[in-house]
Amino acid sequence: MAKRLKGNAVVGQSGGPTMVINESLVGVIEAAKRAGAIRRLLGARHGVRGMKTGDFVDLKRLSAARLAQIAKTPGSALGSTRDKPDKKYCRKIFEVFAAHDVRYFFYIGGNDSADTARIVNELAGEAGYELRVFHVPKTIDNDLRTTDHCPGYGSAARFVASAMMGEDRDNASLPGIKISIIMGRDAGWLTAASSLARRRPDDGPHLIYVPEVPFVLPRFVDDVMKVYRRLGRCLVAVSEGIVDTDKKRTPIAVRLALRWGRPVEYDTHGNAQLSGTGILGDFLTEYIKKKIGKRAAKKLRIRADTYGYLQRSFAGFASPVDRAEARLAGRMAVKYATGADVDGSVAFRRKPGRRYAIECFPTPLASVARLTKSLPRNYINRAGNNITEAFRAYAAPLVGDLPQIGAIG
Amino acid sequence: MAKRLKGNAVVGQSGGPTMVINESLVGVIEAAKRAGAIRRLLGARHGVRGMKTGDFVDLKRLSAARLAQIAKTPGSALGSTRDKPDKKYCRKIFEVFAAHDVRYFFYIGGNDSADTARIVNELAGEAGYELRVFHVPKTIDNDLRTTDHCPGYGSAARFVASAMMGEDRDNASLPGIKISIIMGRDAGWLTAASSLARRRPDDGPHLIYVPEVPFVLPRFVDDVMKVYRRLGRCLVAVSEGIVDTDKKRTPIAVRLALRWGRPVEYDTHGNAQLSGTGILGDFLTEYIKKKIGKRAAKKLRIRADTYGYLQRSFAGFASPVDRAEARLAGRMAVKYATGADVDGSVAFRRKPGRRYAIECFPTPLASVARLTKSLPRNYINRAGNNITEAFRAYAAPLVGDLPQIGAIG
Repeated sequence: MAKRLKGNAVVGQSGGPTMVINESLVGVIEAAKRAGAIRRLLGARHGVRGMKTGDFVDLKRLSAARLAQIAKTPGSALGSTRDKPDKKYCRKIFEVFAAHDVRYFFYIGGNDSADTARIVNELAGEAGYELRVFHVPKTIDNDLRTTDHCPGYGSAARFVASAMMGEDRDNASLPGIKISIIMGRDAGWLTAASSLARRRPDDGPHLIYVPEVPFVLPRFVDDVMKVYRRLGRCLVAVSEGIVDTDKKRTPIAVRLALRWGRPVEYDTHGNAQLSGTGILGDFLTEYIKKKIGKRAAKKLRIRADTYGYLQRSFAGFASPVDRAEARLAGRMAVKYATGADVDGSVAFRRKPGRRYAIECFPTPLASVARLTKSLPRNYINRAGNNITEAFRAYAAPLVGDLPQIGAIG
Repeated sequence: MAKRLKGNAVVGQSGGPTMVINESLVGVIEAAKRAGAIRRLLGARHGVRGMKTGDFVDLKRLSAARLAQIAKTPGSALGSTRDKPDKKYCRKIFEVFAAHDVRYFFYIGGNDSADTARIVNELAGEAGYELRVFHVPKTIDNDLRTTDHCPGYGSAARFVASAMMGEDRDNASLPGIKISIIMGRDAGWLTAASSLARRRPDDGPHLIYVPEVPFVLPRFVDDVMKVYRRLGRCLVAVSEGIVDTDKKRTPIAVRLALRWGRPVEYDTHGNAQLSGTGILGDFLTEYIKKKIGKRAAKKLRIRADTYGYLQRSFAGFASPVDRAEARLAGRMAVKYATGADVDGSVAFRRKPGRRYAIECFPTPLASVARLTKSLPRNYINRAGNNITEAFRAYAAPLVGDLPQIGAIG
């Protein structure tokens, strides 16, 4: 039996929010209310930033009715941050933790956040401060290693799939070429979710481009025009993170911004800003127009949309499965941390059997931090311009029921 | 008692689709099935284009189950068109109509479509061809005259309000300046719907800009920075159709495209393409960055999204009220056309009383065609940078229940 560590706990949220990140927060609060080892549960405002300055809120005081409302709300209810703490930053956190007798630290976030948790944990060890650290996974990018999938992904995927279902019908109504740019910095998981929109053989998206496959512009135009000639229309999903054959793997969107004299922002983790601009979509439509010639372009309806932050924040449309799993991940983090002397991250694996079901397991922080997980090759078709049935079988249970689509035929 | 005109009917869909345009189609089909005067109901593929070429589908054959599915599907199930028929075009339509004994013409569309219906009707009169024409209103822009509101608007407004609710929480999580560009060519109705997202005094959107008020760039930056200094963040809704003090009232987005050497498309009704590009959002973020200086801009998170076609096509998120009213509008068009010798459009008015309820009435085509309806001045605040409670009271019943938002406080 592990030594029973008693004290207060801190929970924080970090990185880009999701539609269900507050389900995990409420999961932590619920479990902490029941855990004898945790006296007070302090919510840190804006992640490590609040931990450094002692900007806390007492979370056990919130009523069940209030928690139920918070759970359904997108965005990080505690506020988020992109700060990446160094040793000095962490020393301040320790001082605050010690002053508040904090012995449990729960951090809800992505792989950058797992890395932050790992660093805080290491420094705690070096400082001889006994602290149990548990990371609760969260990312619409679905690119954490070890776990089958990440809370937050199913809801973002549900948004993308429903958006594409509607776009396909819109594109069939007023035929033309439609390009939609989908979030995902390094991996194509969310862009691949657009494939869930397809119901019948000629439904869009007809082409899907992910960062895992080098994006070659002339080939892209050929692909699009081939579909257009066959169906009289073409719906395309493109990841914001597509890269060409550039050896440094700089996203095309970043190189475009630099070329067009636009400022490119980098966060403290070294990630360039890809979202919050329509640059890639605009470039691709203009490139097609130029390539096929003015005369052909005049007769062709070519449009681009960038789904942007709605993919992670849209209210009232989360996947029920994702909501339940995000809640579970929060609860399990508390269970693991208070049950034994372990640090780590909560991961999911699928139970065997035909019906979809998951179970949780703890995994070391280092197995989740920093590195990301790409789409496996068998989820991408041979030509590198579409997504396979294998991916659809993987992702379908995560998004829940999708809208029905009816057609006159 | 009006002369009983017996024959076949044609129904078409025109212009930009909505989430509920097929509810109106199904309303027409249901009523036509019951109407003794209508033998066959022919669905014209791609609006007047299918009428000209005789590209019809027999709609009475569709089962109730199939119709229920089609009703819930965004996009125009029959296909749409932006063609504006001239006399020659209409003569071809008459030949086809005569060959098919078509005596009823139902056209589901916006003000351009009402104008098309009006022209076809006039030419039918000139040609001595007895034809009853009824327009079924449809537009996410909500800018048709005479009617209290338009089918399609409530669902698009629901999308915008829910998007903004989520964006507000996202913006509070990672504070900064966020600009969202919302559809609406001439009028600010849909952009104004962003105001429905507000629940508490400091909820966003904090500023709302509509085409009805001249947009002055330096004043815009002042407004934004004032909110930012007060709240540490600022969420802004901007109509894609904003115009400055330009006498020709050319939208800023169009002038930008021309200035930046990008092709600008015009449809046959003379409308410039505003959607399907992120140009306005990108320009506004860059303008703010330039205006406040590089140093200040570096510390500030400034992003823009353009909601784009999702506002009219997103699947599975239509307003229940809007769905029911769109269905009703389709049914009533058949009822009016077969019940008396009248042509016109279906309009809504609110019944007196505290609880929201509408009734339909027929209105002449000319009262709906071409001209659009702007936001009344009392829906816009005095400073011209926000939307009033009067608008919120008007629009709230149209969108249905919005997601609940919970905060830690």
